[in-house]
Amino acid sequence: MGKTYSKGLEGVIAAETKMSFIDGEKGVLEYVGIPIGELASHSTFEETVFLLWNLRLPKKDELARFQAELRKRYELPAGMAQRLLSLPRDAKPMHVIRTMVSALSMHDLNPDANDIPSLREKALNILARTPTLLAYFHRYRIGMPLVAPDPSLSIAENFLYMLNGERPTETMAKAMDVCLVLHADHGLNNSTFSARSVMSTQSDMYSAVTAAIGSLKGPLHGGANEGVMVMLNEIPSVDAAEKYVLDKLARKDKIMGFGHRIYKSYDPRAKHLQVLARQLASDTGNIALYDKSKRIEEVMATAVAAKGIYPNVDFYSATTYHCIGLPLDMFTPVFVIARIGGWAGHVIEQMGDNRLFRPDVDYTGPHGVAYTPVTKR
Amino acid sequence: MGKTYSKGLEGVIAAETKMSFIDGEKGVLEYVGIPIGELASHSTFEETVFLLWNLRLPKKDELARFQAELRKRYELPAGMAQRLLSLPRDAKPMHVIRTMVSALSMHDLNPDANDIPSLREKALNILARTPTLLAYFHRYRIGMPLVAPDPSLSIAENFLYMLNGERPTETMAKAMDVCLVLHADHGLNNSTFSARSVMSTQSDMYSAVTAAIGSLKGPLHGGANEGVMVMLNEIPSVDAAEKYVLDKLARKDKIMGFGHRIYKSYDPRAKHLQVLARQLASDTGNIALYDKSKRIEEVMATAVAAKGIYPNVDFYSATTYHCIGLPLDMFTPVFVIARIGGWAGHVIEQMGDNRLFRPDVDYTGPHGVAYTPVTKR
Repeated sequence: MGKTYSKGLEGVIAAETKMSFIDGEKGVLEYVGIPIGELASHSTFEETVFLLWNLRLPKKDELARFQAELRKRYELPAGMAQRLLSLPRDAKPMHVIRTMVSALSMHDLNPDANDIPSLREKALNILARTPTLLAYFHRYRIGMPLVAPDPSLSIAENFLYMLNGERPTETMAKAMDVCLVLHADHGLNNSTFSARSVMSTQSDMYSAVTAAIGSLKGPLHGGANEGVMVMLNEIPSVDAAEKYVLDKLARKDKIMGFGHRIYKSYDPRAKHLQVLARQLASDTGNIALYDKSKRIEEVMATAVAAKGIYPNVDFYSATTYHCIGLPLDMFTPVFVIARIGGWAGHVIEQMGDNRLFRPDVDYTGPHGVAYTPVTKR
Repeated sequence: MGKTYSKGLEGVIAAETKMSFIDGEKGVLEYVGIPIGELASHSTFEETVFLLWNLRLPKKDELARFQAELRKRYELPAGMAQRLLSLPRDAKPMHVIRTMVSALSMHDLNPDANDIPSLREKALNILARTPTLLAYFHRYRIGMPLVAPDPSLSIAENFLYMLNGERPTETMAKAMDVCLVLHADHGLNNSTFSARSVMSTQSDMYSAVTAAIGSLKGPLHGGANEGVMVMLNEIPSVDAAEKYVLDKLARKDKIMGFGHRIYKSYDPRAKHLQVLARQLASDTGNIALYDKSKRIEEVMATAVAAKGIYPNVDFYSATTYHCIGLPLDMFTPVFVIARIGGWAGHVIEQMGDNRLFRPDVDYTGPHGVAYTPVTKR
């Protein structure tokens, strides 16, 4: 077989999935066939995760049981909170959550069990405890008492409650929940692909999700939403946005939050987030931030939309997260919470029909070199 | 472009490298053009890692500086040992080392720096401290006092010293060192590929190596060497080996330590390890273990060698590690120490000419499904 090299594996199919479908030309994203806009409007994060893991929507009692399974796992295993409180306070949350999700496996009696029921159990553990780990670390670093999880709350509500020490408003909790739905799965993005790759050695769920967190952290992936906020902070006013963008484009700099390897039209998640961001910004006295974003989008539309460069999911996430009151370095960790839904589902899919990922490499160095003793070099 | 799906990415070239070259048909492995047998016979692990990271052998003073850089990093950052001593004692070493390498980033003032000098610095940190983390955890779990690293010793000597609390014999230290050389790099194996994939989001060295450890853990990858030892323990005597193997083959069970996706002839590393294992087994009173292995190889040669199934690197690693005195669940962690050389080199290579890994996926589920309210399901 003639071998081809496609850098970054662009155009190479690396797996099959029944979870999400993307049509980048038309700007379509579906989870198990349901358009993302439908889910964002009518579903919840917990229901969406059930959908991704079971390839169908739950019946009422199934959803109740699934939520109960998650909620009873909000608390950390004994000893973990103490260990979290021994971490350097200035550690970055993505390094913390990568490490602590990895550590969860040590509190699992059988972390390497890879049958499907065990994988689902581990996925519940990770999904339920990640918000607690993040909120505890944040409270600890700012010197505030920890707020224990409340099992009467949804993942979105509970996370904001543990983080801020008070119940979120309904609008904020809903916005957070919609963000989780929108970010839950997205084809074979790098973190999902990395999770499937690690799992293909028959390792374990914790190893796969830990790898995925490390991947999502990168500025070319989940880390981009923090970059958007940094940019918004750099622009002093709505009026200054045009010059800022055009200057950057003239220097051939990237504008954070625009363009996507897959979407060549409007990212359907961004469309939904824009509406959400506007409402939240208005409700929370942050309309200037939204207006700045909108102005950037208009300038970009005139300058580069003909090239198929549109706002991506990160662009309006930034405003949304800021309005919910998330600190900048919690933006990507929130993406982690959401994407655990996708990662775990893909790991389960991978184990249903596994083959070790072991691609070829093109060796471009010398051959048949003799070992020269150190005295003769 | 017509898209193809090759399960497990077999036959797909995913990267270029100047580090190692494998000819699976002829049974050749070279690091930067130098045959692996030459390096195993004449080089050291530290020199081999320098070779992989710099694509040439070091001059005498360069090697001395490189060793000094490693040795001054043997000690753990302040607070890490205490945290290690709070882990569950029954945690499995691969879960421990994945977590603790991840945690090292929190003691790095700038963990996300991805310029080449910074990446090398982080690679030194990880390589130097992984043996300390492993040895400390092992001493802690068996209830023995920790043995601080000795910066006058090589990585191989120092690891055995910290693990056992006494200086290893010259033969044992040499055997350990040769094992590290043989396992240091091996093309685009799954853990190396996973490390490059994670790094391609521009994440960081700690995230990439953490992902790789999670991958190596799997029984289809580095975890296989433990499987070989389990098998050897199951066979009561040399005479029982033939029946054991033939029974397994009749049931179409896998024989651990045989066969490799790439090698269709004798794995050159296995050839070298066989000689080493025999010598060590004889020196340490374990010749029966070696004889059992040899007998399995003979039975397999008659039964399946015509199919291109030969011993792989794991097969004689098991006897070797057992003779050095390593506990069973430290076999794969020793592979981690060795392969950090390869992983870090590949991460540096990836960042020298990076493109995000973002393959396609074949969606095989339904389309255009309506969201049904929960009351109507």
